[in-house]
Amino acid sequence: MRYALGIDVGGTKIYSAEIDENGQIVSDIEKNPTPKSFAEIKLLFESIIKKHEQNVDIIAFSTCGAVNNENSHILGSTGNIADGYPNMPFKELSIKPVFVENDANCAAWAEYKTGASKGTKVSIMLTLGTGVGGGIIINNELLKGQNGAAGEMHFKMYSDKRRKCTCGNWDCFEIYASGKGLQITASEILKNSNITTYDVIEGVQNNDSKMIEILDKWQDDITNGIIGLSNIFDPDCVVLSGSMAQFVDEVKIQNNANKEIITTPIEVKKAIAGNYSGMIGAALLAFEKGVM
Amino acid sequence: MRYALGIDVGGTKIYSAEIDENGQIVSDIEKNPTPKSFAEIKLLFESIIKKHEQNVDIIAFSTCGAVNNENSHILGSTGNIADGYPNMPFKELSIKPVFVENDANCAAWAEYKTGASKGTKVSIMLTLGTGVGGGIIINNELLKGQNGAAGEMHFKMYSDKRRKCTCGNWDCFEIYASGKGLQITASEILKNSNITTYDVIEGVQNNDSKMIEILDKWQDDITNGIIGLSNIFDPDCVVLSGSMAQFVDEVKIQNNANKEIITTPIEVKKAIAGNYSGMIGAALLAFEKGVM
Repeated sequence: MRYALGIDVGGTKIYSAEIDENGQIVSDIEKNPTPKSFAEIKLLFESIIKKHEQNVDIIAFSTCGAVNNENSHILGSTGNIADGYPNMPFKELSIKPVFVENDANCAAWAEYKTGASKGTKVSIMLTLGTGVGGGIIINNELLKGQNGAAGEMHFKMYSDKRRKCTCGNWDCFEIYASGKGLQITASEILKNSNITTYDVIEGVQNNDSKMIEILDKWQDDITNGIIGLSNIFDPDCVVLSGSMAQFVDEVKIQNNANKEIITTPIEVKKAIAGNYSGMIGAALLAFEKGVM
Repeated sequence: MRYALGIDVGGTKIYSAEIDENGQIVSDIEKNPTPKSFAEIKLLFESIIKKHEQNVDIIAFSTCGAVNNENSHILGSTGNIADGYPNMPFKELSIKPVFVENDANCAAWAEYKTGASKGTKVSIMLTLGTGVGGGIIINNELLKGQNGAAGEMHFKMYSDKRRKCTCGNWDCFEIYASGKGLQITASEILKNSNITTYDVIEGVQNNDSKMIEILDKWQDDITNGIIGLSNIFDPDCVVLSGSMAQFVDEVKIQNNANKEIITTPIEVKKAIAGNYSGMIGAALLAFEKGVM
């Protein structure tokens, strides 16, 4: 049995644990707040690696940001984390082989190997959080693209410049389907920019019809994006994960999407691999790609 | 050297010719109007095949309609051709092996093997005609999806129901980026539903500023679709083909798209494999897939 040290690097937290070839976590899980500077993050990585290096065959990072096709470094910039982080010299952090992949891709791989999309030919994972991430698996391969940056869920929901997206452009799926998107939808419908996603969710739980209308509008936007992706990919399955996925009605989305999809019907499922799917997916991908 | 009989089946014409492993046409090219009934189409296929069967190793169909992953039959319905055509028993038409693939996929493959996208890792072909077709090639494989129907360019350009698409749903890329889309854009801007795409093209050639505005709007819609596809696939190259491709300014589209693409920059090129790319691609795919 081979073992990996999985390290999942997000904007707020860094998880780490030892993981075996079956995707089982075999050590305590360590959880650290993400430090504010490049130097502190690097120090934290070094201390985590030092602790586990002797027990594992490979170090597997799941990270925010697009990762190159050689799984060695981050391409371009990443929001929500220290400046300079994309220059992290991952390969130099350990005497063991180091493997790096984008977090949405890792989570998609974990679902594909152990979770909701197990056994599918073509699956699309959408991570609905503050933003939206994407991971697409086709015939047992992650879709990476010419340079490794594929899977960005920035396709337009409107073509007449309504909402500025966090990417700097207009009306991307992300700025409608994310938590931020729900908040903007609520502000627009209620004409009140102080409304929060929490207010919407609480309202829905209390059967407030206006809040239900807002949540439905947000789910319709998610559905519209899934229709387009399905006509492009003809997938078996779309998996919804991330902190916002708990608020969607996946059966309703599946039924509504299948009414408009012109390829073949899809399943819409919630992710089941859990909070640690990033590091589990990174470990399983590292074993699969054989960077040993 | 192996040879294929390539047969390209469109709504108005059926082309056929013998093609070698290099994609060279090695016989006369036969061109027939597409018959109006299933029985007549089948008879025409049988007569074409009878004439060439002894000279070739395989019969390779490029056809309208989505084709299954086993390359044996059409999935679901196809517009613009005789009712019942999707039930064509392709495999029974010859004593030689028969291979069937969707025409946009075949054209994409011809460009990838011999034309504008030769040598790329990830390419997207958009066939801009009366409708819009799509063919996507990733790491030397056509994207086919769970059942073979992938590559349908029916993702939404707006989410508020403006234009009914030929697929029955609303605001798909096809109903903006096609020739039909240009005609609707012209009708909307001029508030005159009698305007034709021919009027627009003629006006542009005569430097009519209104017609130039209309053509620019149509190209902006094409650009917006390409931005979304590029963020999803991170392709090297987007190839534009079909009867409407001659009217686009691919340099302008490339430059405008690259201003908004957040993955990595792409090239936009016009197809160069020509009018026979459907049957050439079908033949090359048949050889590649080894259905012999």
